[in-house]
Amino acid sequence: MDPSGLAQKVLAGDRRAVARAISMVEDGSSELPALSEAIYPKTGRAYTVGLTGSPGVGKSSLAEQLLRTARARDQTVAVLAIDPTSPFTGGALLGDRLRMQVHATDPSVFIRSMATRGHLGGMALAAPEAIRILDASGKDLVIVETVGVGQAEVEVATATDTTLVVVAPGWGDYVQVAKAGILEIADVFVVNKADREGAGDAARDLKSMLRMGPKMDWTPPVVKTSTVTAEGVDELWEAIDQHRKHQESTGALDEKRRTRILEEVKSMVAFRLRERATDALDVDVGLAEEVATRALDPYRAAEILLQRVARDQVALGEADG
Amino acid sequence: MDPSGLAQKVLAGDRRAVARAISMVEDGSSELPALSEAIYPKTGRAYTVGLTGSPGVGKSSLAEQLLRTARARDQTVAVLAIDPTSPFTGGALLGDRLRMQVHATDPSVFIRSMATRGHLGGMALAAPEAIRILDASGKDLVIVETVGVGQAEVEVATATDTTLVVVAPGWGDYVQVAKAGILEIADVFVVNKADREGAGDAARDLKSMLRMGPKMDWTPPVVKTSTVTAEGVDELWEAIDQHRKHQESTGALDEKRRTRILEEVKSMVAFRLRERATDALDVDVGLAEEVATRALDPYRAAEILLQRVARDQVALGEADG
Repeated sequence: MDPSGLAQKVLAGDRRAVARAISMVEDGSSELPALSEAIYPKTGRAYTVGLTGSPGVGKSSLAEQLLRTARARDQTVAVLAIDPTSPFTGGALLGDRLRMQVHATDPSVFIRSMATRGHLGGMALAAPEAIRILDASGKDLVIVETVGVGQAEVEVATATDTTLVVVAPGWGDYVQVAKAGILEIADVFVVNKADREGAGDAARDLKSMLRMGPKMDWTPPVVKTSTVTAEGVDELWEAIDQHRKHQESTGALDEKRRTRILEEVKSMVAFRLRERATDALDVDVGLAEEVATRALDPYRAAEILLQRVARDQVALGEADG
Repeated sequence: MDPSGLAQKVLAGDRRAVARAISMVEDGSSELPALSEAIYPKTGRAYTVGLTGSPGVGKSSLAEQLLRTARARDQTVAVLAIDPTSPFTGGALLGDRLRMQVHATDPSVFIRSMATRGHLGGMALAAPEAIRILDASGKDLVIVETVGVGQAEVEVATATDTTLVVVAPGWGDYVQVAKAGILEIADVFVVNKADREGAGDAARDLKSMLRMGPKMDWTPPVVKTSTVTAEGVDELWEAIDQHRKHQESTGALDEKRRTRILEEVKSMVAFRLRERATDALDVDVGLAEEVATRALDPYRAAEILLQRVARDQVALGEADG
């Protein structure tokens, strides 16, 4: 299928076309620019929510509860789980998503794991593009869940309209969240596993940390949830909705989305040049050897490569136009 | 001080010069190329060990135990802790490093936290450069500890000669480590907090996962440690030493270091171009506006920017030379 035909099917909400388009993003297909050109004008309708937090705090269960809540309110939903791929654990994550299977026959739900580990800068560029495909396919809500809690994962989770930081009592609790530096990126805090001992303490501690921190335009609410009893899930939904309204009324939402897409464009430029530099270095074995043997400093080598790829790019541009 | 004067002091092992040079790395100083040129030929002597694992498993305590062990063997040591900077927690991490303070008066020890959050691609580029400074200053062993456990953090921890993946019973245990996708990057597994219940189970589970996984040239040993009783720390030291000898005898160490520095050069090229793209986009408000309003697709915008920065780069190169 040609990219524009595929794009039409994505825009019509065709599930197989959406799955195929996301696979193209995973693979970094050469047809992505054509696909993107056709769907990009139709994006911006979906609201996006990102979940981040230490492994084990229950992000997947929470995503599933949010999915249920959205369906109960007649919203169409996509869940995108960003998974590192491990040769040891090919099956582990699929098992984890089993509870999602009950939604497999619901035409208003689309669930997808996306593997990106190993592609430098891959997660940061692949996730927003996959989100746009889900957006263009007509989903009202796109929930994005990351597995790890590091710089790249936080970047993905914050590249959404509302970012939830999830903690659990006694496991990746607030002190650990603070150490991971993800306190300041939360729009809403979720203390999950509220049925366990210590949930009240964790919520109180988070609230007092917020009081001690810098004054903010929007103070992140702290919501206690239990995915066992479904306690607090409606309250969480309300908190997300409040954050959305706050951002819409202040114009912060448009501003955030604008900044986001421009950052992505800059990263695209950098990513392409990195590929070119790789090719250039593969060709010039002598240059690589000089760096490896410490005869040539990495900065100087980078400068030489930079000049080379720039010259090639200009020549390419002139040949094209 | 001029960069070459500073470099001479770094090479002489002057602590203040080393601290100053690392601050330059943190800030992305314009004098880094000159500094790097002077010290790079003198690097490659230090052995580097990276620690990664979920927040709370005790990486800092373990780093401190390794430091003690190295000193008992008369090795000089540097510890580099890569910290995300959070406006909420400026003091939390310093407190955490208090136990390191006992080494503050030991001239053979250098301990430093490095903040890099917010610099896109910053951690991946800043960490190896700081490591080279510590290497050039004459330290035998450089221990690198990352706080989070995500793609970027794993990248930093694996950009060392031996990577330790640290887990703890009941906290970021092996299932969670598997989910985070960091099983396959370990050269040595450490089950820390071995004084706690469940440590034996965690170690057994890890070993059986390793048996089930793909066959490897080097099978990562699983070592149980307790930073309370210092149990297992000598064994861990032995495991690191075995891994080092294995890599030296197979030539894997040189190969790994070569790949690492070349990857870094490619990232440098990409990073510089990203800065140029940012400048170009700041100047061309019309282009940014077209992307933000969805009149222009991000891929097409990236192509336009790419051509523009390439042309500027070529012009710059011609002006220089």
